[in-house]
Amino acid sequence: MASSAIIGSSSNVQEMLDLEQNNHLNERARWVLDAPKPPGPWHELLDCVKENVLPHGNKFLSLRNQPGMKRAVSLLQGIFPVLGWCRNYKATKFKNDLLAGLTLASLSIPQSIGYATLAKLDPQYGLYTSVVPPLIYAIMGTSREIAIGPVAVVSLLLSSMIQKLEDPLANPISYRKLVLTATFFAGAFQAAFGLFRLGFLVDFLSHASIVGFMAGAAIVIGLQQLKGLIGITHFTNKTDIISVLKAVLKSVHHPWNPLNFILGCSFLSFILITRFLGRRNTKLFWLPAIAPLISVVLSTLIVYLTGADKHGVKIVKHINGGINPSSVHDLQFHGQNVGELARIGLILAVVALTEAIAVGRSIASMRGYHLDGNKEMVAMGFMNVIGSFTSCYVATGSFSRSAVNFSAGCESTVSNIVMAITVLISLQLFTSLLYYTPIAILASIILSALPGLIDLHEVQKIWKIDKLDFLACIGAFFGVLFASVEIGLLAAVTISFAKVIIISIRPGVECLGRLPGTDLFCDVNQYPVAVNTPGILIFRIKSALLCFANANFVRQRIMGWVIEENEHEESEEKAQGTIQLVVLDMSSLMNIDTSGIASLEELHKILASKGIQLAIANPRWKVIDKLRLAKFVDKIGGKVFLTVGEAIDACLNPKMATI
Amino acid sequence: MASSAIIGSSSNVQEMLDLEQNNHLNERARWVLDAPKPPGPWHELLDCVKENVLPHGNKFLSLRNQPGMKRAVSLLQGIFPVLGWCRNYKATKFKNDLLAGLTLASLSIPQSIGYATLAKLDPQYGLYTSVVPPLIYAIMGTSREIAIGPVAVVSLLLSSMIQKLEDPLANPISYRKLVLTATFFAGAFQAAFGLFRLGFLVDFLSHASIVGFMAGAAIVIGLQQLKGLIGITHFTNKTDIISVLKAVLKSVHHPWNPLNFILGCSFLSFILITRFLGRRNTKLFWLPAIAPLISVVLSTLIVYLTGADKHGVKIVKHINGGINPSSVHDLQFHGQNVGELARIGLILAVVALTEAIAVGRSIASMRGYHLDGNKEMVAMGFMNVIGSFTSCYVATGSFSRSAVNFSAGCESTVSNIVMAITVLISLQLFTSLLYYTPIAILASIILSALPGLIDLHEVQKIWKIDKLDFLACIGAFFGVLFASVEIGLLAAVTISFAKVIIISIRPGVECLGRLPGTDLFCDVNQYPVAVNTPGILIFRIKSALLCFANANFVRQRIMGWVIEENEHEESEEKAQGTIQLVVLDMSSLMNIDTSGIASLEELHKILASKGIQLAIANPRWKVIDKLRLAKFVDKIGGKVFLTVGEAIDACLNPKMATI
Repeated sequence: MASSAIIGSSSNVQEMLDLEQNNHLNERARWVLDAPKPPGPWHELLDCVKENVLPHGNKFLSLRNQPGMKRAVSLLQGIFPVLGWCRNYKATKFKNDLLAGLTLASLSIPQSIGYATLAKLDPQYGLYTSVVPPLIYAIMGTSREIAIGPVAVVSLLLSSMIQKLEDPLANPISYRKLVLTATFFAGAFQAAFGLFRLGFLVDFLSHASIVGFMAGAAIVIGLQQLKGLIGITHFTNKTDIISVLKAVLKSVHHPWNPLNFILGCSFLSFILITRFLGRRNTKLFWLPAIAPLISVVLSTLIVYLTGADKHGVKIVKHINGGINPSSVHDLQFHGQNVGELARIGLILAVVALTEAIAVGRSIASMRGYHLDGNKEMVAMGFMNVIGSFTSCYVATGSFSRSAVNFSAGCESTVSNIVMAITVLISLQLFTSLLYYTPIAILASIILSALPGLIDLHEVQKIWKIDKLDFLACIGAFFGVLFASVEIGLLAAVTISFAKVIIISIRPGVECLGRLPGTDLFCDVNQYPVAVNTPGILIFRIKSALLCFANANFVRQRIMGWVIEENEHEESEEKAQGTIQLVVLDMSSLMNIDTSGIASLEELHKILASKGIQLAIANPRWKVIDKLRLAKFVDKIGGKVFLTVGEAIDACLNPKMATI
Repeated sequence: MASSAIIGSSSNVQEMLDLEQNNHLNERARWVLDAPKPPGPWHELLDCVKENVLPHGNKFLSLRNQPGMKRAVSLLQGIFPVLGWCRNYKATKFKNDLLAGLTLASLSIPQSIGYATLAKLDPQYGLYTSVVPPLIYAIMGTSREIAIGPVAVVSLLLSSMIQKLEDPLANPISYRKLVLTATFFAGAFQAAFGLFRLGFLVDFLSHASIVGFMAGAAIVIGLQQLKGLIGITHFTNKTDIISVLKAVLKSVHHPWNPLNFILGCSFLSFILITRFLGRRNTKLFWLPAIAPLISVVLSTLIVYLTGADKHGVKIVKHINGGINPSSVHDLQFHGQNVGELARIGLILAVVALTEAIAVGRSIASMRGYHLDGNKEMVAMGFMNVIGSFTSCYVATGSFSRSAVNFSAGCESTVSNIVMAITVLISLQLFTSLLYYTPIAILASIILSALPGLIDLHEVQKIWKIDKLDFLACIGAFFGVLFASVEIGLLAAVTISFAKVIIISIRPGVECLGRLPGTDLFCDVNQYPVAVNTPGILIFRIKSALLCFANANFVRQRIMGWVIEENEHEESEEKAQGTIQLVVLDMSSLMNIDTSGIASLEELHKILASKGIQLAIANPRWKVIDKLRLAKFVDKIGGKVFLTVGEAIDACLNPKMATI
């Protein structure tokens, strides 16, 4: 009521405003047509490279004006973030870090040994990998909470790919050499990604496909543990579920010792119960963290005291003690496998970075600080390159241990240093104590870490929000499960990109109607309140790209609607007349190619032959530039406007606005 | 001056309007948030299939209500368009068609023989292909001007692919069987495309890549003609430029007879001169059309009279006369080559359709009628399937002959019938006259048709308008030229789709500013008149899809701008304060995936930690639905608005509009 009164009283003013607006109409249409030229493709490419290589270009330039000393310090702090925070490091912080580091070490030692067996290496290599990389990361990394060391998925990936080149049982030494070389390549790729700011490559593994991939890998890793848990000697080298189940079934028929299974399952139950307790009561967070170590100690004692190893319980036996030996001479950069190793290194680099950055970023956003992806990559790259010189295989940030580190209240990367030193001391002094550790316990420790990799809640959320994302997710999952880890990754990337293509070229056109009381024209399906204007059809192209793959379809759809509407209006009410004007709202269209322009030209020709005008509203920068270049603007008589409303005003009242 | 007076007088009204608008603000924001649920992916898929399979669904349904007889007639007319126009067909029209058909036949006979040699078949197979397919097309096709028969590119493609399976010189009979089987497959695929309305598959060969592909094929075909023109006996089977040039150079060292070359070149000059005359004077259009036939007759006479065949001029020799023999028993649907032949058939089907639809559509839009792509495909499919039963190889619409048909003033597909009957009569009566026709003349006839396939003007236009399209164009060109015809096609499709991916995931964000005197917010680069609002940053995502591949980059870019702007404002003018609000204009964004939503959540978290509000303007149907599902709308406190202006009003004056 009030609003209608206002409208009534302002109607004469409205008329004057209309007049004024029409004066502006020309000017505004000129804004569209006289837009400056958009940057060319070379310019864009150059900009893109510049932005990637020098994201803080201005900062670097401003550094130049500072005195040399300060500049050097800034640069050094950029490379070694440790220099930035170590001066403010206090004893209270160290207390927290020490506690967190020790908790971390108690989880790290048994996990490292387990993951080394998953990577088909001797147990000490897992421990080596928990020494050098964390130390390097501590001085170069930007994340405070991430826990560095061997992880399950990377260990599985490594062994599944490298055992195709060399049998780890027959030739353990040359297998190890290949692993170390692949580690070097992985580190080199990671550092290169960081230095050349190619961090976006890691984004190509979409969140959804990582969820599926991790879940699939967890199940595959779990199946691999059946070997240790049941105590099978002959097992398949393949990782897919069918081969593994076949191998398990086959060995079940052979005589097998249930002691391994009983021992493994009881300690697995113990670890899972402590985890349940830890989750119920957050103060007991240390209980699940040290449970694996307790299991190792207890089971080793039991086997030692009962002599169960003589009754069929498989044990770790000898572990080489001592600190990391140099492995510089083990790296092989010649021979026929180098190309293949580089490819494996690339895959390992991407998977390792994906896991580390996912965990690092999620903790950083919880703590409210920013993680520099490119710096992280450089740090990870250096730690793996140096790791490959010191008998370490690929290390990265672990999901489970980072969470423990975070809950244990770590304050800085010092917790990683504490952990590394603890592992180093264990390597030096306590490896002989692990002689009687049953292999079934290592299997149960790995198994206990797997549920954390399967995120059913997230899968459900993905299903709810985006069905195509879900497809990428289960594609990765089944690929890993039924084919191989690499096929799973490939499936995930392929589905993700196919999704991008399908959505991008999906030819969509929507009819727009005026929202009551506004000058806005919106999709009549999304806004049921929107009303059509008689005699005018307004379309908006729903794709960002009018190109070869969708232009014809868009043209046909628009023509179909125009013909249908014409027939409809002819039959319904003769008085109202037929369609006079088609307005194409191009506000969503980012780019157009020559096929798209050809389609628009054809549309214009056919519409013109039926006496219907064609006007264009709100073309974006590149689109209007290309339409101008192709002389399409001239062909439609310059009917290009800033908004749909202005296009309608100008075309239906030609005396009011002539351009 | 006038406008300022109006604004002054209307200021109090404006205030009231403002008040009223604020009352509406809530309502409008509700429009966005309460949008109905968009159709799910299954629904969309179903719609898409329905639309494709039954594009005139309503028409079919309305047909059901008609009496049976009328329904049957309508259906028959749909399948055989000839029934529609034959009743109105008049004698005057027939006169034009007769003239056009005879002109067409005079060009068709020499070209068919030439293209048959290009396809490595005996000459009569080219003539057969000019008989049956045009007749079938005449009763099923919708284009009136298209001239059906063998064409150069398809002939080349056919021979280049099938000679990998069978040597045409050593085993001509089994080679021919393979060709006929491939023709059957091509026809079956074409008919299937039409019946299942998969016409969009043809669009996947973009305009730009067809231009490049045709130009490359023209050069390759031209090089193949060197064999006939120079009279080489031993020639390479490969089509790439390097192999062909090597073969030519090799044979030049052998003794070769210049008579072939002289004869070919002189008649080539003759044909080119007549074409030049025909282009200068449109009334002489028939001169270039019959020039090839004149050349054949003259050169045959010359050879016959001078006995030049005894002095090294290569001649056609015996051509089997008589009408098309049945070839039903030549088709091979078993053996190891069937899969490969089906693949070849698919490629042939796509290339043949691409050429036919391109020429048909361009003529139809000149004449102002609509060409039904799917009906065309069915017609082409049936003509090739029936062709494969009657010793024809793949026929399609020819560029050069359709242009002649058009210039000769054809009125309907009757011109094709006239042409087919003329060719049939020639087959029956005159083949023995072609005994002395020199092969060099056939080569020069093919060569004379090639310049029409190279469209330099179009290449220039593509370069000017779209550099990435140009890349697809030269990719196809060089692929055909230096590798093979298939590689060229593959390169074209790959580059085209890579272009779609690159443009779609290119992470772009643009800063928006208010256009003076309006409530519109536009890209400040495109509209230099746009002004920034202090304390507010408005961004628009330039991609249609915020997904795994670009979401992180977009987030980083926005954060970078916010930090930069904050620093800038802090240093410049303390009074103005820092950024309070970031508005994300989502009007271009068609879709978002789970990675995109995760990125927005992270952006919101970081902005919130700096005390900056985040508001969303004009989210599209699917985007707002997904944001609601992911509870992102709740997380940002429901700050979703219809326009950027309303977002600013509501967020900076919270008392005016609380949702």
